[in-house]
Amino acid sequence: MVLGERGGWDKNESRYCGVETEYGADMPNLLSFNISSASFDFILAPLMDPTYRPSLMEENKAASCVPPFAGSDLVLSPSQWSSHVVGKISSWIDLDSEDETLRKDSETTLKQEIAWATHLSVQACLLPSPKGTSCANYARCVNQILQGTSNIQLWLRIPLVKTDDDSMDLSADHLDDSWELWNSFRLLCEHHSQLSVALDVLSSLPSANSLGRWFGESVRAAIIHTDSFLTNARGYPCLSKRHQKLINGFFNHSIQIVISGKPVHKLPKACMDSAANQVINNNKNAQHPLGSYLEYVGYLYQKMDPLPEQERFELGYRDVLQSPLQPLMDNLEAQTYETFEKDTMKYIQYQRAICKALLDRVPDEEASTFDIVLMVVGAGRGPLVRASLQAAEETGRKLKVYAVEKNPNAVVTLHSLVKLEGWENVVTIVSCDMRHWDAPEKADILVSELLGSFGDNELSPECLDGAQRFLKQDGISIPSSYTSFIQPLTASKIHNDVKSHKDVAHFETAYVVKLHNVARLAPSQPVFTFTHPDHSTMKSNQRYKKLKFKMPSDTGSAIVHGFAGYFDATLYKDVHLGIEPSTTTPNMFSWFTIFFPLRTPICIRPDSPLEVHFWRCCGSNKVWYEWCVASPCPSPIHNSNGRSYWVGL
Amino acid sequence: MVLGERGGWDKNESRYCGVETEYGADMPNLLSFNISSASFDFILAPLMDPTYRPSLMEENKAASCVPPFAGSDLVLSPSQWSSHVVGKISSWIDLDSEDETLRKDSETTLKQEIAWATHLSVQACLLPSPKGTSCANYARCVNQILQGTSNIQLWLRIPLVKTDDDSMDLSADHLDDSWELWNSFRLLCEHHSQLSVALDVLSSLPSANSLGRWFGESVRAAIIHTDSFLTNARGYPCLSKRHQKLINGFFNHSIQIVISGKPVHKLPKACMDSAANQVINNNKNAQHPLGSYLEYVGYLYQKMDPLPEQERFELGYRDVLQSPLQPLMDNLEAQTYETFEKDTMKYIQYQRAICKALLDRVPDEEASTFDIVLMVVGAGRGPLVRASLQAAEETGRKLKVYAVEKNPNAVVTLHSLVKLEGWENVVTIVSCDMRHWDAPEKADILVSELLGSFGDNELSPECLDGAQRFLKQDGISIPSSYTSFIQPLTASKIHNDVKSHKDVAHFETAYVVKLHNVARLAPSQPVFTFTHPDHSTMKSNQRYKKLKFKMPSDTGSAIVHGFAGYFDATLYKDVHLGIEPSTTTPNMFSWFTIFFPLRTPICIRPDSPLEVHFWRCCGSNKVWYEWCVASPCPSPIHNSNGRSYWVGL
Repeated sequence: MVLGERGGWDKNESRYCGVETEYGADMPNLLSFNISSASFDFILAPLMDPTYRPSLMEENKAASCVPPFAGSDLVLSPSQWSSHVVGKISSWIDLDSEDETLRKDSETTLKQEIAWATHLSVQACLLPSPKGTSCANYARCVNQILQGTSNIQLWLRIPLVKTDDDSMDLSADHLDDSWELWNSFRLLCEHHSQLSVALDVLSSLPSANSLGRWFGESVRAAIIHTDSFLTNARGYPCLSKRHQKLINGFFNHSIQIVISGKPVHKLPKACMDSAANQVINNNKNAQHPLGSYLEYVGYLYQKMDPLPEQERFELGYRDVLQSPLQPLMDNLEAQTYETFEKDTMKYIQYQRAICKALLDRVPDEEASTFDIVLMVVGAGRGPLVRASLQAAEETGRKLKVYAVEKNPNAVVTLHSLVKLEGWENVVTIVSCDMRHWDAPEKADILVSELLGSFGDNELSPECLDGAQRFLKQDGISIPSSYTSFIQPLTASKIHNDVKSHKDVAHFETAYVVKLHNVARLAPSQPVFTFTHPDHSTMKSNQRYKKLKFKMPSDTGSAIVHGFAGYFDATLYKDVHLGIEPSTTTPNMFSWFTIFFPLRTPICIRPDSPLEVHFWRCCGSNKVWYEWCVASPCPSPIHNSNGRSYWVGL
Repeated sequence: MVLGERGGWDKNESRYCGVETEYGADMPNLLSFNISSASFDFILAPLMDPTYRPSLMEENKAASCVPPFAGSDLVLSPSQWSSHVVGKISSWIDLDSEDETLRKDSETTLKQEIAWATHLSVQACLLPSPKGTSCANYARCVNQILQGTSNIQLWLRIPLVKTDDDSMDLSADHLDDSWELWNSFRLLCEHHSQLSVALDVLSSLPSANSLGRWFGESVRAAIIHTDSFLTNARGYPCLSKRHQKLINGFFNHSIQIVISGKPVHKLPKACMDSAANQVINNNKNAQHPLGSYLEYVGYLYQKMDPLPEQERFELGYRDVLQSPLQPLMDNLEAQTYETFEKDTMKYIQYQRAICKALLDRVPDEEASTFDIVLMVVGAGRGPLVRASLQAAEETGRKLKVYAVEKNPNAVVTLHSLVKLEGWENVVTIVSCDMRHWDAPEKADILVSELLGSFGDNELSPECLDGAQRFLKQDGISIPSSYTSFIQPLTASKIHNDVKSHKDVAHFETAYVVKLHNVARLAPSQPVFTFTHPDHSTMKSNQRYKKLKFKMPSDTGSAIVHGFAGYFDATLYKDVHLGIEPSTTTPNMFSWFTIFFPLRTPICIRPDSPLEVHFWRCCGSNKVWYEWCVASPCPSPIHNSNGRSYWVGL
């Protein structure tokens, strides 16, 4: 039984809720709750007797070849094992103990349990938390399992703990920040994609910044202990506001909730009987002892805001890497034009900007006599032509429009649009690359939309340098400027997807991606700015920027997998357009974020700022970016000479 | 003219000595000194007018396409350019300046000069020191040159500076340790093999530990300033003891000396005339103004101790990576036996150990009656059989020898040896793998030499486990134990050789190598120990060791490319044999060091110890090592499941 339905979002893993059980629990009975209304979807079940120790077996010399497994694989059906059980590895194991016997017992048992779980076709196993601050031998053993042939998912149990920096004693050997433990473990296991985290949620929570880091990590489950629940006025379990917010975050990031522990809330008998869903089910046993906790989690799930339509539409794009468009080298396809033209918000902003420019350009008294020459460069299938004409109508200005477009396929549509709309006397269509067009007259206003997710990355600067030839000395360019921004990210999933190509080139390529399972570690900062028109004599489109990012001091350490890139454009005066998170234009969907990866993820601490360098380089037939981290530890310079990724001129 | 000849060592680059010149120096004349006796082999010459600035050219609009080069390429012959000139890039360039014009001028000039140097076929160019503590833009530009098609060697000039930790102000932005600058630069340039260091040697020197780091780096030249020289009693230049020691180190590591600066020693006229080499040359101009400095460097070169014969023989093996032998899986070839049998010192130690064991085993009074059963397991072509029989003769003990050998080719030689030496009544040859031999009686003494560079890495433990079956309960194994050792290294050249394979597997393989251009960063520490015989019931040949290395506090930071591995074996009681540097058996050459690489080099600081984990893992048909760094920053676990490197059983 799932927690609920959420409009259109039926593939979210987090609608399944699990329960942690002890060894010897009656699994068939537990799973039979499934047919009742309030029931768990899966159980976290130990697979082996917790008193078993290989060394004791050998000492007893008793049947040492037959491990004392929990029972037979016949207890459940194969589909139940694989769909409703997560194997729980014995929690006593401690591969980094000083006690060699315990260490060896732990290794033997871990491998036996994983083998048994694999035999059962269990999809995932929960690994107990590392016991101390050191975990190298544990990680070595887990890594051997991961590098083997098994496809099993391993969830490392990590308590959600971070003490404040103020109280942190650097010399002490206790656990200050459980993220550090996870980070060591996963670095030792080389960011293996089958290794994830199951977070133990306790009654006290670290700061929001510290919690935020986990949304960029591969977290599969959050185990909530019954003693983390509060009691509401009617005696039912509930969670603090901060816990609720966290759980909502888990739901949004496809993290499954697991309830663990003994019931600590004594429900009033009357309430239980009167519960609506109990009326139709007379079987007394149907309510699981932890049912009220499950019901509360289900309540939280159901009261989430439904996803907006655009978000639902974009679900399939979350964290999926796409190559950026190269509209200068390649001609866009009809479908691409179609998608972009639907972005109403973008054209509303353009129309507002054009209106203001028209009013500034021609005073009211000359409105009927002055013919403004407006050129749309990169007219595509005409949306900016339409916005321009609507702006002219709105302001009562007279326009003469040139629509310049290099894609001959789009020009076909443009011609039919002009006929259809009766624009023949106003709009001249020019089928030509703006960089080479020999214009018959100069323009008052140049309108273009050549921006990529990173602003200049579709070569708007180079194109407008060419078009500037036919703009009057005092003419207006819309946009008048644009700036790119970057921000350091934790992005485990994206990192693993880039890594799966097993080459350097993919780590030196920028990707367009709808970011979702990421942690944004510091506010974004501006990188490169271009202004149009630019009449300076020694102009260059090369750029170089050094940036220093500092994480909030309560975050703790974090890992940086790369950088999110955004842009913000000033169309005209106060009319802007952009995707930079703090100033983003709402309800606009033409641009996803751009992502610049790092070949080797870099660990940063709040006290040591991240120094990043970005270059925009220009060659005779291409433009490319290079980037590196200079501090706390220098990375190689990425994409030297544009060897892996470039944009063709 | 070279500095001198050193027995057999005529390929050492460091016998060439250079001189740094100013722009406009008369290069043909300077090089004509070459025909005289005391002359420099090459010149470090600026290639471009130091007053040139691209931005000034553009402002003047004067012939901006023709850079004002030093002169024509016809000044010297092509072979002179390529053999006797190192191009000196203009020292004013500063790519990390806050001044954008200077930054752009620097980039343009650097690229023009490298292009000109490439045109001249100059083999190397000297890059000026980075000006501040930041060098990312400089490194980006140099990296673009390196990643391009040019084969030119680039020497980054680095002053040999390190202030003491005590006086170090962490918040200050000045240069504490020039190694850090080099480290950042080369990390940004991805350890490029064409990028090296030219060290500026000043009058004061950092500590020996700090200097030692450089011998693991790619240092090509050491530039000694005339004002670093002292004056001897006769008025001639000389160097301090510490400088002399450093220069000897440079000679030993093929680092070329360059003299720089104005002559600051006024030589007594009489002395100059009477100098032996001046008598035969009457040309007054033949003595270069810096000739006396060159003569002193030549004097230091010539007074070096000649290389011992064994060292000369091994010159060709320096820093060359070899795969370790797999004598268990593969049969050794005659040539390999031949080489090892020449290692007299090894057999002297074995004979000493066997003598002591024989004396302990049989008291004098039973010497003539007691037949000691001695088995040589892995007899090869018989050297240990000979050592055993000589020990018996030396001690007056009676022996019955079994020579067990699995390689049928070696057994052929053994048979003929037995006949040749008349050992028929004493020695029984057994053509069999010791792990499977069904021995007719049990042995008093088991003699073996199955050790690899890392002790157990040729599977001595597994072989002796098999042989132990036919050792008497109180029998003696020679060796009785062996221990492996590791030590962290800076080893740029080796790292680059491993990297050149462009795969992970080569970074997860151990190599046998005669280490030379390396820096040993901390004393070695023991890793795994095996003792024979081992009668415990639950024995295992798996091992796990955690090690913490701490660098001497005056070293500064350093980079770790991997670990040198050694062994020390106790043959019997106080007779040992090994290659661990602090206890190494002298004049023994059977074993080079073993080297375990790190996939990503790790920077360490004296205040943060290096924590390393090593595992010896055993499978059903192979044995392998896994290793990782856990601190200061976790590395991936190398060679998981022996996926890249293993030893077959």
